[in-house]
Amino acid sequence: MSPSASYSTYNLDRVEQLIARGHGITGLTKAELPTPALVVDIDKLESNIAQMSDYAKQAGISLRPHAKTHKTPEIARRQIAAGALGVCCATIHEAEALARAGLSGLLITSEQVGLNKMARLIRLTEQRPDTMSVIDSAAHAEALNDAASVGKTVLNILIDIDPYGRRTGIAPGIKAEELGKLVDSLPHLNLRGVHGYSGAASHVHGWANRKNESTDHMLPVLASFEAMKKAGLPMEIMSGASTGTYNIDSQLAGMTELQVGSYVFMDADYRSIGGQSGAVYDDFRPSLTVLSTVVSKRYSDIATIDAGIKSFATDHDALPEVVGIEGATYSFNGDEHGRIHLDKAARDLQLGEKLELIISHCDPTVNLYERMYVCRGEQIVDVWSVAGRGNI
Amino acid sequence: MSPSASYSTYNLDRVEQLIARGHGITGLTKAELPTPALVVDIDKLESNIAQMSDYAKQAGISLRPHAKTHKTPEIARRQIAAGALGVCCATIHEAEALARAGLSGLLITSEQVGLNKMARLIRLTEQRPDTMSVIDSAAHAEALNDAASVGKTVLNILIDIDPYGRRTGIAPGIKAEELGKLVDSLPHLNLRGVHGYSGAASHVHGWANRKNESTDHMLPVLASFEAMKKAGLPMEIMSGASTGTYNIDSQLAGMTELQVGSYVFMDADYRSIGGQSGAVYDDFRPSLTVLSTVVSKRYSDIATIDAGIKSFATDHDALPEVVGIEGATYSFNGDEHGRIHLDKAARDLQLGEKLELIISHCDPTVNLYERMYVCRGEQIVDVWSVAGRGNI
Repeated sequence: MSPSASYSTYNLDRVEQLIARGHGITGLTKAELPTPALVVDIDKLESNIAQMSDYAKQAGISLRPHAKTHKTPEIARRQIAAGALGVCCATIHEAEALARAGLSGLLITSEQVGLNKMARLIRLTEQRPDTMSVIDSAAHAEALNDAASVGKTVLNILIDIDPYGRRTGIAPGIKAEELGKLVDSLPHLNLRGVHGYSGAASHVHGWANRKNESTDHMLPVLASFEAMKKAGLPMEIMSGASTGTYNIDSQLAGMTELQVGSYVFMDADYRSIGGQSGAVYDDFRPSLTVLSTVVSKRYSDIATIDAGIKSFATDHDALPEVVGIEGATYSFNGDEHGRIHLDKAARDLQLGEKLELIISHCDPTVNLYERMYVCRGEQIVDVWSVAGRGNI
Repeated sequence: MSPSASYSTYNLDRVEQLIARGHGITGLTKAELPTPALVVDIDKLESNIAQMSDYAKQAGISLRPHAKTHKTPEIARRQIAAGALGVCCATIHEAEALARAGLSGLLITSEQVGLNKMARLIRLTEQRPDTMSVIDSAAHAEALNDAASVGKTVLNILIDIDPYGRRTGIAPGIKAEELGKLVDSLPHLNLRGVHGYSGAASHVHGWANRKNESTDHMLPVLASFEAMKKAGLPMEIMSGASTGTYNIDSQLAGMTELQVGSYVFMDADYRSIGGQSGAVYDDFRPSLTVLSTVVSKRYSDIATIDAGIKSFATDHDALPEVVGIEGATYSFNGDEHGRIHLDKAARDLQLGEKLELIISHCDPTVNLYERMYVCRGEQIVDVWSVAGRGNI
């Protein structure tokens, strides 16, 4: 338990300044943070960004990393500084948050359907004319064109081709080409290329299996891209790939840019799919953890921490991994609590002790937090706003 | 698809005023909202609040409903106006958010361990002297007493007794009584009673089974409460129960107040556990939905909507339930998307159409949203801040 000597010197005001202002408050350590807290290791993050950037340069392909992973302007800024063309966004809200922070080169990879999203897409394009989004139907193309004509805006469009999975996207082939021609003919739409994302391939276990599956999914998309180009359509951009397939899809002829996302943080789920050279996918370093506190310690075999369903995404089978205690494992124990299993652990835990866990699935975990604390070792060196989080 | 005629009259500025200011913007309809949106039906919500209040009055028991369900000052205010003593909170952040909104009578039902949370609990108690929290160990009692002594504050304490589940709480019996005596002896702690919450009993399927399990769990806690009272300790409060056990635990001798939460909203998960008189637990009305938009419609048997893992909690087996289309079902399809299965549906869906879904698990779903739109039929009559959401 934290002794009262520590309490009497604890500076709550200083911690609150850190939370409210972020930049410019230094000298705090991890031990002083409110928990549960999302913590990013700046050295590992920057090493991941540099490594993907180096890979892309060597492979002769462009990067427009997916900001849905981090939703954080300070990270997008670093990706662009390392050579990315811009960033992808999953929602208009993410794109608005990044534009507010001064960023451009935004590609929204989901269909923006309905009055509210169309209006926001048009306004964003007026502010950032290089903004792009995707469509997968003639009805949507015509509605966007009509809406944009009200304000004389021209919207940049990629044809969303479905490699697999039937989530969004038109089938590759003649239908996609017809949609391309329609978009090209509409005065308030500016056709720029093709978007094709295979979420199904991204997490296939075993690199060779993943290579086969992703290649099977992507070749018809790339053939459509090529056919549209031959038909005289203005096909500059062929965007796709994930952190799981960055060194697979980048080798396919025709791909022009990668929308890799999770590599900045990595997570327990991605680590488990295997890399090109081993059973653990460790091309990039896990940089994101949740810091928690042991809040109940009544039994020798378990400890209860203050991080549960509200602090980690629960959508995947992978669980958060305990850092620094061999054999200790995590399970969910309600909205606000998690259980640390200590029966096979190298050491015990004490009431009040801080415990860090590698997150299980980065994107929806980040979405649960308003901010991330940026650390170098035990020191907090900055606080970043997760400005694009939430449903807005 | 929304025709362009609708687009040209769409007032984005007005929608943004609604989001930013909430109160005082009227005349908007559900169709104009950005999706995914959390929507509460005010009539159903108020009927649920009134019904639980009536039940408690008839049963002769007090209510301190759990605000972890809604995290929303406007709902806590209505619960207190209907006769509740105050509200429970799961975290210090929830309690701070409700106190900022002017509320009091707050019971924080989780141990506040570590320098940051102890400092905030002390500050909150200085602002709202009737604030209570829980402890389950002598080490924590002594740390809190020492911390409170720095500022001469007196903290109100319930002994957290574990009915089952080993999450937090001391075992019922002599150990709990010893802890009660210790708390009573410490000058900066003010013993008020016992907290005993059986999460395990709350969702047992079948009312008779649930009654047996909850009674088994709670009787030892109530015996401890009684023993401490007989030992001369100041035992005013015996707090427990859930929406699943409100009409079970309220009948147990010794219970003084109920910390029911989910009844304000209900959810698909709670509905499935069965009520006292039937297979569906329908004592309270589902008042909370997520409004979504069909963003892709390429196949006859499915539609893709813009509400996925970021818009619904994924921790329980129950899935969101489609409102108004017999036979249509939902499955998750990534962070930002869900799939509507239409092969057995009474009708088809169109691109751009709005679709409402009853949420699967209320507490962690509410946690994903910054605000809830308050509706009466199709009209939006208010916007409430989910001020206690998140990890802070």
